[in-house]
Amino acid sequence: MMKWEENVRKVVPYVAGEQPNRPNMIKLNTNECPYPPAPGVRKAAENMESAALRLYPDSNAQPLVDALAAYYDVKPEQVFVGVGSDDVLSMAFMTFFNSGKPILFPDVTYSFYDVWADLYRIPYRTCALDENWHIHPEDYKQPNGGVIFPNPNAPTGVEESLETVEEILQANPDVVVIVDEAYVDFGGKSALPLLKKYENLLVVQTFSKSRAMAGMRIGFCIGNEKLIHYLNDVKFSFNSYTMNLPSQVMGVEAVKDDTYFKATTAKIIATRERVKKELTSLGFTFPDSKANFIFASHKEVPAEELFRALREADIYVRHWNKPRISNSLRISVGTDEEMDRLIAFLKEYLEKRV
Amino acid sequence: MMKWEENVRKVVPYVAGEQPNRPNMIKLNTNECPYPPAPGVRKAAENMESAALRLYPDSNAQPLVDALAAYYDVKPEQVFVGVGSDDVLSMAFMTFFNSGKPILFPDVTYSFYDVWADLYRIPYRTCALDENWHIHPEDYKQPNGGVIFPNPNAPTGVEESLETVEEILQANPDVVVIVDEAYVDFGGKSALPLLKKYENLLVVQTFSKSRAMAGMRIGFCIGNEKLIHYLNDVKFSFNSYTMNLPSQVMGVEAVKDDTYFKATTAKIIATRERVKKELTSLGFTFPDSKANFIFASHKEVPAEELFRALREADIYVRHWNKPRISNSLRISVGTDEEMDRLIAFLKEYLEKRV
Repeated sequence: MMKWEENVRKVVPYVAGEQPNRPNMIKLNTNECPYPPAPGVRKAAENMESAALRLYPDSNAQPLVDALAAYYDVKPEQVFVGVGSDDVLSMAFMTFFNSGKPILFPDVTYSFYDVWADLYRIPYRTCALDENWHIHPEDYKQPNGGVIFPNPNAPTGVEESLETVEEILQANPDVVVIVDEAYVDFGGKSALPLLKKYENLLVVQTFSKSRAMAGMRIGFCIGNEKLIHYLNDVKFSFNSYTMNLPSQVMGVEAVKDDTYFKATTAKIIATRERVKKELTSLGFTFPDSKANFIFASHKEVPAEELFRALREADIYVRHWNKPRISNSLRISVGTDEEMDRLIAFLKEYLEKRV
Repeated sequence: MMKWEENVRKVVPYVAGEQPNRPNMIKLNTNECPYPPAPGVRKAAENMESAALRLYPDSNAQPLVDALAAYYDVKPEQVFVGVGSDDVLSMAFMTFFNSGKPILFPDVTYSFYDVWADLYRIPYRTCALDENWHIHPEDYKQPNGGVIFPNPNAPTGVEESLETVEEILQANPDVVVIVDEAYVDFGGKSALPLLKKYENLLVVQTFSKSRAMAGMRIGFCIGNEKLIHYLNDVKFSFNSYTMNLPSQVMGVEAVKDDTYFKATTAKIIATRERVKKELTSLGFTFPDSKANFIFASHKEVPAEELFRALREADIYVRHWNKPRISNSLRISVGTDEEMDRLIAFLKEYLEKRV
């Protein structure tokens, strides 16, 4: 090792869900939307004035901020957008979690929370979900420097009621509470109505799932004007221009087409509910999912075995060798045809195997 | 102030160059390219398969990495891309400057270096440029935790010779040396040929100036494979997907069209050289610029007065109330027509005033 290498930041690189790209493969491993974005998105790309690309983009992404504010019926000053919800969440960690006290989040949850905490040297404590993958609200009544949890949770798909969310907010008036609603559009209840009562609540959402635009990298959060102002101050203090022009103009079109959005999410929900029944009849158990995935274990066959068998059949789902979740598969909800192929394969495999 | 606000990160928000947008205004304040991007960029936007947007983008931006590697005749493993060169630079600070010793950069330079140093708690020391805005190579022979400087420098436009760059590299084998070449394509000499001799050299460039794509947010760096590997490890450890699909496909087209690229930069250089003569005849002095801007002071009229007068005439240039540079204007090189209007205004104003 050369001397200059001694001062390199040493990290454990994140291993993302595989992104294979083969004809006929079925990709149910990263919770993408199986349907394309709204038709207006394509038109916006076609009509984009490429001469405008020579200029820096609006650093505030104002057209997109305005569209989101109108859609969610809040003020533009209550909306902050970023390059994917990962960017928004990371910025929120940096901005709000500086007390020195540990922040709290569930033990089984989105895998980047501890990463950002380590990155910004924020102490944290995880709170174990109960045996049905639910939050114990009592856990969030200890002294802390902030709270974050996804609702519905990932990778379980389990939704907490707004009563639980509010119980946590009531117990934590002195810190920022972030509800990560990446999967809320598949039948979950958003905490947005609670914004009127809790100025320390930040609700984070994304275009990567329900709006079928993972390839665009668009995330956003909505909160009290003060929270958003603080976020903007931090963002502008070290990187003024992050969201490019295509994301701004194409994002607006996705927000505008509410009919398409509702139809797409309804289709995914219908497929999910049907697949739940079929998985049950094949001997799988799973917490009731309100997300665009199902977190399933088979009563007899280990998850890792099924993961490998599916992979050999070119069906990609997600599996983690981690405590508590190593016997589960996270299966994204694809099109009906994709799910039929998944179910047919599992049926045949399990018949031979069990 | 509410209790939760006590733990908010307090920052001094960066004030970017104004981005007004009025008919007939002349915008010479943020060093954008006055010409549109290569024609293929527009076609790429039109032809983009919008259905592909539902998927996460290639996290490595491989198509763009490959195009850049081919263009600069290096291996793909030597190229790292980011969301603007600000993203690349910020990531490089985080990855390479962890010794605890101060990093070194010029006192008059790109205004984000000290910002990122503060952000990542990296100590730093600035080295005064000489009275002609040149680096003293001797300053960079003191113990340090890393070195960064732009070449040509901003906001002066002054280029250091490759001999000076190499002298600094020779004195610093044990730290990473970053040469920020945001403006190198306007007649400067790149340090890329030095990569063969110095594995601790990182060369950073951008699509925002010479490739006319500030609106896309694309930056990149080229270095030894080990350096790039470390950068990727850090990047992937906390944000896997940053560059969106349009940036990847449109960026490739910009790199491919070398004829357009060379013609555009040649036009800007020709305009710059002509404007230098005209500014001189109006009583301005300036260091010889190798960038797409001129850093000019008038012999008799204060920069701030000229800045305000130009602004009232809807001609936007950049001015800072900072030590050493408060009597200079940074004037981006626009089209010939824009520069004619600038010169005509200055001529008339100075005739009346002096």
